[in-house]
Amino acid sequence: MQLSMTLDELNSFLDDHFPQVAGEFEVMDVTPMHLVTRANVADKHLRPGGTVSGPTMFALADVSVYLAILAMVGPKALAVTTNCAIDFMRKPAAATNLRGETRILKLGKVLAVGDVLIFSEGDDRPVARASMTYSIPPGP
Amino acid sequence: MQLSMTLDELNSFLDDHFPQVAGEFEVMDVTPMHLVTRANVADKHLRPGGTVSGPTMFALADVSVYLAILAMVGPKALAVTTNCAIDFMRKPAAATNLRGETRILKLGKVLAVGDVLIFSEGDDRPVARASMTYSIPPGP
Amino acid sequence: MQLSMTLDELNSFLDDHFPQVAGEFEVMDVTPMHLVTRANVADKHLRPGGTVSGPTMFALADVSVYLAILAMVGPKALAVTTNCAIDFMRKPAAATNLRGETRILKLGKVLAVGDVLIFSEGDDRPVARASMTYSIPPGP
Amino acid sequence: MQLSMTLDELNSFLDDHFPQVAGEFEVMDVTPMHLVTRANVADKHLRPGGTVSGPTMFALADVSVYLAILAMVGPKALAVTTNCAIDFMRKPAAATNLRGETRILKLGKVLAVGDVLIFSEGDDRPVARASMTYSIPPGP
Repeated sequence: MQLSMTLDELNSFLDDHFPQVAGEFEVMDVTPMHLVTRANVADKHLRPGGTVSGPTMFALADVSVYLAILAMVGPKALAVTTNCAIDFMRKPAAATNLRGETRILKLGKVLAVGDVLIFSEGDDRPVARASMTYSIPPGP
Repeated sequence: MQLSMTLDELNSFLDDHFPQVAGEFEVMDVTPMHLVTRANVADKHLRPGGTVSGPTMFALADVSVYLAILAMVGPKALAVTTNCAIDFMRKPAAATNLRGETRILKLGKVLAVGDVLIFSEGDDRPVARASMTYSIPPGP
Repeated sequence: MQLSMTLDELNSFLDDHFPQVAGEFEVMDVTPMHLVTRANVADKHLRPGGTVSGPTMFALADVSVYLAILAMVGPKALAVTTNCAIDFMRKPAAATNLRGETRILKLGKVLAVGDVLIFSEGDDRPVARASMTYSIPPGP
Repeated sequence: MQLSMTLDELNSFLDDHFPQVAGEFEVMDVTPMHLVTRANVADKHLRPGGTVSGPTMFALADVSVYLAILAMVGPKALAVTTNCAIDFMRKPAAATNLRGETRILKLGKVLAVGDVLIFSEGDDRPVARASMTYSIPPGP
């Protein structure tokens, strides 16, 4: 399978359609069925002790799998998250950006499934692992 | 088992320890092993079409189970989320507050487990269902 | 919403379509969107110490939500499990039957979601909690 | 980190401690933090149409992560499954053995987390994906 969107197109799509999180997340790399993302961690993402909050990691996982699906099927899709399972395994480094490594495991007509490993930048032990399912609406 | 914290103590704890989300979430009711919360939905929680974002629902589930545990064991705990599984079942009503109904299913020495049903206020069909596990650190 | 299958019809369906597990599981009660099941625990379901195995609890949860869906939509459906999240919270009592209390939370055209609390018979503290998603194929 | 158990020791441990599933599962390969397993599919694992049952895939995931942890920490452990999230993504091939590829993502003092991709032998598209958490009891 081939990519339907380039790195630049994915980042533009993110800025245009999710202005509430503009600048928080960006796509760093994309290949068929794989995507690398970064969360630019700011004060509002932190919890006591400087650690990155759970909702920030959830949001990174959610946007990462969403964009990895769009990269394959194109920007016309309006996929909806139906399920997420997430394991928080280590405390993220204080005030450090997050890196998400996403792979798509299934790209069906109705459901798509992907998973994400999340790292604090500069550390190769994952801080979290998430799997996400998206429901893909029927095409026009 | 009996409550260790009152409704007012839980809301004060939330304001003091989570200033980043002050005003976003509040505890409406607490009884042993049960808690009712509200998410005060604002522009930043919305997605295209006015629907409430997934990360907002995750954050509501996370804070709800956390506070339901603290209500039982007291404010000294520093519990950490280790796992979440969440099903997004319906589109939340546009620009409408969310209501979370939480029950604690296990309150062990090491792990606590709870689940949450999330509703758009005024509708009795759940928009999401989440289960959360917390790791409870050894006491002093 | 009303039931499409009676208690007897559900048990007959189970015996006819799942002969591999005949006698292991039975439906004890059914009302709209709710179902009570029993797992008849035998030697093959046990682990060292006499405790009931994880796969047995998974199987009970799986069949319970499946039958709770069929009870509503009728025996024509060929629903497929797409996702399960399960928390094992307590050690089941040794060599004791399990009881599953299931509720359907969403019954959509494409996806159905339910959750189950599992108990050792005679104890009101849940040993496990599971949520299951089923994909419902298009009707004829 | 280094292995604490060899391939032969893991298979012997499985036969000795889980006689109920003797012959159903075997370890094919082990390296630090990784394990490959096989489920030898027989009639009792099948569902209508010849497909492998969900509980069989759950059991393969459960035993795979368990053995991958023991491979690292040694046979003295009595780890207990606390959580599983599993996505069933494709119909397994009829009457075909399953292959499980497991990686350990966290090996802590209290909790260990791993995930598994499950394949029908001879097909490189995963039929299921599971993540499992184990609670590790304090050592002697």
